[in-house]
Amino acid sequence: MTRKHEGEAGGPRRRAEIFTATLDMLGSLGYDSLTIEGVAQHSGVNKTTIYRWWSSKSELLRDALLHSHMLRFELPDTGSLRGDLTELAERVQALLDDEHRRTIVEAALVGAVRHQAMRELVVSFLDDRFGRHQPVFERAMARGDLPHDADPALLVDAMAGALWMRVLVRRGDVADTYTRDLVDMLMDGVQKSATLSGRPAR
Amino acid sequence: MTRKHEGEAGGPRRRAEIFTATLDMLGSLGYDSLTIEGVAQHSGVNKTTIYRWWSSKSELLRDALLHSHMLRFELPDTGSLRGDLTELAERVQALLDDEHRRTIVEAALVGAVRHQAMRELVVSFLDDRFGRHQPVFERAMARGDLPHDADPALLVDAMAGALWMRVLVRRGDVADTYTRDLVDMLMDGVQKSATLSGRPAR
Repeated sequence: MTRKHEGEAGGPRRRAEIFTATLDMLGSLGYDSLTIEGVAQHSGVNKTTIYRWWSSKSELLRDALLHSHMLRFELPDTGSLRGDLTELAERVQALLDDEHRRTIVEAALVGAVRHQAMRELVVSFLDDRFGRHQPVFERAMARGDLPHDADPALLVDAMAGALWMRVLVRRGDVADTYTRDLVDMLMDGVQKSATLSGRPAR
Repeated sequence: MTRKHEGEAGGPRRRAEIFTATLDMLGSLGYDSLTIEGVAQHSGVNKTTIYRWWSSKSELLRDALLHSHMLRFELPDTGSLRGDLTELAERVQALLDDEHRRTIVEAALVGAVRHQAMRELVVSFLDDRFGRHQPVFERAMARGDLPHDADPALLVDAMAGALWMRVLVRRGDVADTYTRDLVDMLMDGVQKSATLSGRPAR
């Protein structure tokens, strides 16, 4: 009865609506209360159709996180690591600044703390996004912008983690220059970034 | 009836047990289900005694977060910013690696996402800790290790945020050298840290 769905092309015709309903319900109800029945009702797609493609809520949620347009952004090639990281930080900040999408991210992170299954989904999601951003680091290494033994995962942790602390925890205390200052610090180091950037002291 | 309690010296005789019970219950039940009645029962201190000092659960929780020994650590003066930051990162990692204390931190952060009152408590807690760590940055600026226009809050966000991502989200994927690599990156910048540190490529 369960049919294998393949990558982005697989899934039923109203796939995008199902994913949107899934993430909306995750955001509004949290992981515990999310059900396939609820998604069916919210998306207007028959429950049996959803079950034909996804046999459990965690399978459905995995695909929704990975493939929904709501949590996705494209990164342009700006020609420099600093430019590319600034784009990445700004895209993440824009995502977190959008109340609807922030609610989904928060529900996923809260769920990850409480449920092993949700944590695995979040880790898959982060791995997938990290994979999509690999070209940024490959280009930088090819250009000589980044040493070959640098650890891009550490950089991404520090960048995403700082935005999480500032936007989700401290909320409302985000300077306009936050992403630029963050990227400068990660690029140049805290000892040099403030003086190197040549801007006046704050 | 409510008596003002002053700083760390104030509060009833069995203050430490009350704080421990409060944080234990936050960790096991979450912010929603935490009650002064529960803390009284768990600590064996009379409910009216607790109410004499703290008129609400958020007041009690604020003092427990700020003053309990469970979430506190002292930072030695190592003589360098790199050494001091490494101590700080290792103390935070040790706190998150301890399952009991991690549960408390997780409950506070989960609560902060869901409840305005809990978020304010977490922000007060972070501000308090940031204030306690100010001597690290003051010493570094006095020594010339850190430019006077550097932003220590950004540094702390990136450090705490990276540890949060690695320990609480990715859990179990923490290399022994993670804190050292993190501090090197924040000190020297990602472009230089890997080569400057002179260790072999991973």
